[in-house]
Amino acid sequence: MFEIRTDLAVEEKESFPGKGTEVTGVSLREWRKAFSKIKLTEVAILDEHGAKAMGKPKGTYITMEAKALAKGDEDYHREVSGELAVQLKRMVKELKRQGEVPDRENIHVLAVGLGNPSVTPDALGPKVLGNLKVNRNITEEKTVVLSGIVPGVMAQTGMETAEILKGILHETKPDLVVAVDALAARSIRRLGTTLQLTNTGIHPGSGVGNHRHSLTKESLGIPVLAIGVPTVVGAAAIVHDTISTLIQTLASHAQTEKTGEFLEQLSPEEQYQLICELLEPEFGALYVTPPDIDQTVKRLSYTISEGIHMAFYPKWE
Amino acid sequence: MFEIRTDLAVEEKESFPGKGTEVTGVSLREWRKAFSKIKLTEVAILDEHGAKAMGKPKGTYITMEAKALAKGDEDYHREVSGELAVQLKRMVKELKRQGEVPDRENIHVLAVGLGNPSVTPDALGPKVLGNLKVNRNITEEKTVVLSGIVPGVMAQTGMETAEILKGILHETKPDLVVAVDALAARSIRRLGTTLQLTNTGIHPGSGVGNHRHSLTKESLGIPVLAIGVPTVVGAAAIVHDTISTLIQTLASHAQTEKTGEFLEQLSPEEQYQLICELLEPEFGALYVTPPDIDQTVKRLSYTISEGIHMAFYPKWE
Amino acid sequence: MFEIRTDLAVEEKESFPGKGTEVTGVSLREWRKAFSKIKLTEVAILDEHGAKAMGKPKGTYITMEAKALAKGDEDYHREVSGELAVQLKRMVKELKRQGEVPDRENIHVLAVGLGNPSVTPDALGPKVLGNLKVNRNITEEKTVVLSGIVPGVMAQTGMETAEILKGILHETKPDLVVAVDALAARSIRRLGTTLQLTNTGIHPGSGVGNHRHSLTKESLGIPVLAIGVPTVVGAAAIVHDTISTLIQTLASHAQTEKTGEFLEQLSPEEQYQLICELLEPEFGALYVTPPDIDQTVKRLSYTISEGIHMAFYPKWE
Amino acid sequence: MFEIRTDLAVEEKESFPGKGTEVTGVSLREWRKAFSKIKLTEVAILDEHGAKAMGKPKGTYITMEAKALAKGDEDYHREVSGELAVQLKRMVKELKRQGEVPDRENIHVLAVGLGNPSVTPDALGPKVLGNLKVNRNITEEKTVVLSGIVPGVMAQTGMETAEILKGILHETKPDLVVAVDALAARSIRRLGTTLQLTNTGIHPGSGVGNHRHSLTKESLGIPVLAIGVPTVVGAAAIVHDTISTLIQTLASHAQTEKTGEFLEQLSPEEQYQLICELLEPEFGALYVTPPDIDQTVKRLSYTISEGIHMAFYPKWE
Repeated sequence: MFEIRTDLAVEEKESFPGKGTEVTGVSLREWRKAFSKIKLTEVAILDEHGAKAMGKPKGTYITMEAKALAKGDEDYHREVSGELAVQLKRMVKELKRQGEVPDRENIHVLAVGLGNPSVTPDALGPKVLGNLKVNRNITEEKTVVLSGIVPGVMAQTGMETAEILKGILHETKPDLVVAVDALAARSIRRLGTTLQLTNTGIHPGSGVGNHRHSLTKESLGIPVLAIGVPTVVGAAAIVHDTISTLIQTLASHAQTEKTGEFLEQLSPEEQYQLICELLEPEFGALYVTPPDIDQTVKRLSYTISEGIHMAFYPKWE
Repeated sequence: MFEIRTDLAVEEKESFPGKGTEVTGVSLREWRKAFSKIKLTEVAILDEHGAKAMGKPKGTYITMEAKALAKGDEDYHREVSGELAVQLKRMVKELKRQGEVPDRENIHVLAVGLGNPSVTPDALGPKVLGNLKVNRNITEEKTVVLSGIVPGVMAQTGMETAEILKGILHETKPDLVVAVDALAARSIRRLGTTLQLTNTGIHPGSGVGNHRHSLTKESLGIPVLAIGVPTVVGAAAIVHDTISTLIQTLASHAQTEKTGEFLEQLSPEEQYQLICELLEPEFGALYVTPPDIDQTVKRLSYTISEGIHMAFYPKWE
Repeated sequence: MFEIRTDLAVEEKESFPGKGTEVTGVSLREWRKAFSKIKLTEVAILDEHGAKAMGKPKGTYITMEAKALAKGDEDYHREVSGELAVQLKRMVKELKRQGEVPDRENIHVLAVGLGNPSVTPDALGPKVLGNLKVNRNITEEKTVVLSGIVPGVMAQTGMETAEILKGILHETKPDLVVAVDALAARSIRRLGTTLQLTNTGIHPGSGVGNHRHSLTKESLGIPVLAIGVPTVVGAAAIVHDTISTLIQTLASHAQTEKTGEFLEQLSPEEQYQLICELLEPEFGALYVTPPDIDQTVKRLSYTISEGIHMAFYPKWE
Repeated sequence: MFEIRTDLAVEEKESFPGKGTEVTGVSLREWRKAFSKIKLTEVAILDEHGAKAMGKPKGTYITMEAKALAKGDEDYHREVSGELAVQLKRMVKELKRQGEVPDRENIHVLAVGLGNPSVTPDALGPKVLGNLKVNRNITEEKTVVLSGIVPGVMAQTGMETAEILKGILHETKPDLVVAVDALAARSIRRLGTTLQLTNTGIHPGSGVGNHRHSLTKESLGIPVLAIGVPTVVGAAAIVHDTISTLIQTLASHAQTEKTGEFLEQLSPEEQYQLICELLEPEFGALYVTPPDIDQTVKRLSYTISEGIHMAFYPKWE
């Protein structure tokens, strides 16, 4: 059966019935900096109960939302880069405090650009890596050491991304992975307008290309921060949402007009079951994306690479 | 309101109630060559009545269908290239017979690769042109003279494709345009498996990128043959189709269970109206495409460029 | 015989024997703005005598030199963008004063990205166009109207660039062409460090790809400003220069050691003749380029597109 | 001082004074199949003496030469693919016989595409990998298991290619590496017309991008077959060769005209010294390449990927 998935913790939280109500084991914090058009949200999944309710692993998910990101306004992009740098540094500091990352200036960070460079909405990670200035090959450096890799996708390599990364980690011993990936959202309004940063890594079924193996502290042995922006919505998701609306419409008609007993009798689970039967199996792999996704991905790839530069290179302006 | 469109005449024909019934002004012919896995269909729209019923201009639409096209089987691709060459030559011969194209060997053909090279499912036309061997710059040539252009998309040029082409036609005076474009289908089963060749040119609202102006004999002054393969389905189309199925399901329940009078009372037009109200306005621009579209487009771009080579270069093997 | 060419007027000027001496019909002005690391040079070819001496048409050639351009220093790039905008606006103002371009705010500028997008050092023009924000398709605009085209190269189109542009000009009637092209320099020290802006357009034999037809006021009917950066040196040029040095070395030895009478007897013309005989004919088409040319072209493409934005969009920051 | 290098063993052999004479420790075999336009040469470096004389490690170097490769003739390309497959299979068989590779059908081969995908003449390896059909992710396979990686270049990754490969080998345990790389030749006539296959792997200073670490049995732990085609000539090489010709010309003049005693007195070593002094230090990194290198690399990438398919997939036609 379909999983109508979203990679955004903030969307998962919104989907709870009685939006705004509290979920045990999940904390939510929203704020906006003075004079800023960026809305920040932090969803913290605190325990196993929260993880189960949210369908996402324990950890912190920070989202930065700015409608202007979808447009070419450079000021917003610079502001988002700056905010991404602030939040990245905060997460690294926390990892140092917890002893997960060594507490010294010159930690070695491996940046990973996930996704298929030949498929426009999946190319965000590779494009960020294309902009990134690495320095591990320049020996004098005394600050953060940055290396980077675009591992490709399994259809091209015949290997799991996790295999490739484990090998590189084994050889080069970085202290931290920062993975960049294109995400799948639930709502088309999120496309290109929301940036998520999380300390939980990459999980099976996430991203545009559906990685099968996870890239996490557990699987790789070192902490994995993940940066992502939704560039697609699953085809099943938009069909599902539209049908849900139809069923609600019909059910309300049914009550007033003494009809629709069939629908009335359906529990939410049975309704979900009905919808899934209607979705064609092929929908699972298909995704929905806007026609100007090339411009969006190109712009955002700079926003993110600049954020990484600002977080790790102290003199970066 | 939405137009749930398809660029394939064969799908338009299938959508008629009572599939298989005849439509005045439209003739349908299906055949299969001996020992071939390619199914050929010719939809001929004969008059204004047929054009109105089909929502497509008068002319001939030939489709070649082969499920194996979706896979990397080179034999089928070669067979489809050969068949495309046969049909292209047949159409050119007919144009010569009608006096639309001069009746001599060395006609000048301008190949046009429509679409956005940076958006994977829209890049079919540019990729075909990237494979194409032009010869207009090699003066000794005594056979067909081939030139080619990738005009780009309006968001990048600020110009209508028709403007660019009219200008080039004015300067270089070709006898015939062969335009290649990625198409939008209605059914996801058509993606990458159906090739359409038509003598009616390119029409507003067709293609992945929604050209606003037509590229036809009327607008350009010379005949336009168009080759296309569906690489996307409109997001609205798959939502629409799934909801139609749901409504039929509910309506049949209604009859047996004495419920659903609401739906029973809805005429097909009212049902369509209801569905369109449910579709979000943003869906209009969104498209659905499979994750391996890069491989499909790369393969098909060779199938089509080889077909064009075989049609116009007599010694091409 | 070989033409050991350079596209840079400033290099042509330097090549005169007794560098620094005046050439009739050519004026030279060098300056540096306060606190700036950019060196500006204006070579003005004033009459036919100067044109013949320089091997370049009458007009103004402004070069901006900054060694830091070769590196990724963003500050210099921003400064060069700003200076390019200043000089572009100055040239447009002069063209308005002369009545060559209509004296109103909303002139229509067609930006042209010359060169082959698939060959890294030749891709500067196409890459600038890829960054450029055109606005002709957005009707409300009241300032400069910008459209853009990447015409491709003759091996791919079978058409001269001039043919394609004449056609587009005929249809869209711009007031001014701004062409961007990768240039060939004489000295490898110029690669990626010198930007030339000229009001003389593009001439046969210039650029990396050796355009055969000129793109000028005379050929196109409207003024053509050309922006270029050297990304290659002709293979013949570096061989020529090294041999010249050798001959000088040998000749000086000859004088002191009473040898080399053969070389002593050669006039400069005969020496040049000797060198050309040594150069293999294939060298004419070959070019020399550094291995990191991809990074240079990517960076400079932003420097130039930003300069064009700043020149034509008044609110561009 | 400069090393005027070539990656082709056949060119190294040709450079010996008294071309055709035997070198101790080096065997040479040339042949041509019936009805074939491909010339095959096998240079076998048999011992340390041969290795020192040739400046290349012990092993077998097979070259396939066909002038027609430079053109788009598909027949030759298919023939070269077939011959590459024959020679690849022969080398694998020999490795099995020597116990270097396990003697079973389903060995695991890792294909490696070396070079920078963004620099046209260096993109041969990445482009071959882009065409390659891997099957390691398809579990049913009972024949050769093929995986593939494009490791990128150090300027983009901050890592040595050897580090990345060692890591991947550690995780995925292939039996054999087949590396594809763009080569540097000595003669411009070799560009795009000669394919070299060797069982000695990749050595420091080879390839267009100058890999610093070797990829060999010694460094990686498993045998490395390397496939390459020259796409560049070092800038120093063509200058060197032209000057050598000049010196010979002058020296012969000197003898007849009783001049040029200076040159007469120079030993070959001193002549080489003189030439190297004339070469500018920057020449070391520069390379010479033809303007149509994009077409050459695109065509050859298919020739090579087809050869690999034919060698390892038994049913490949």
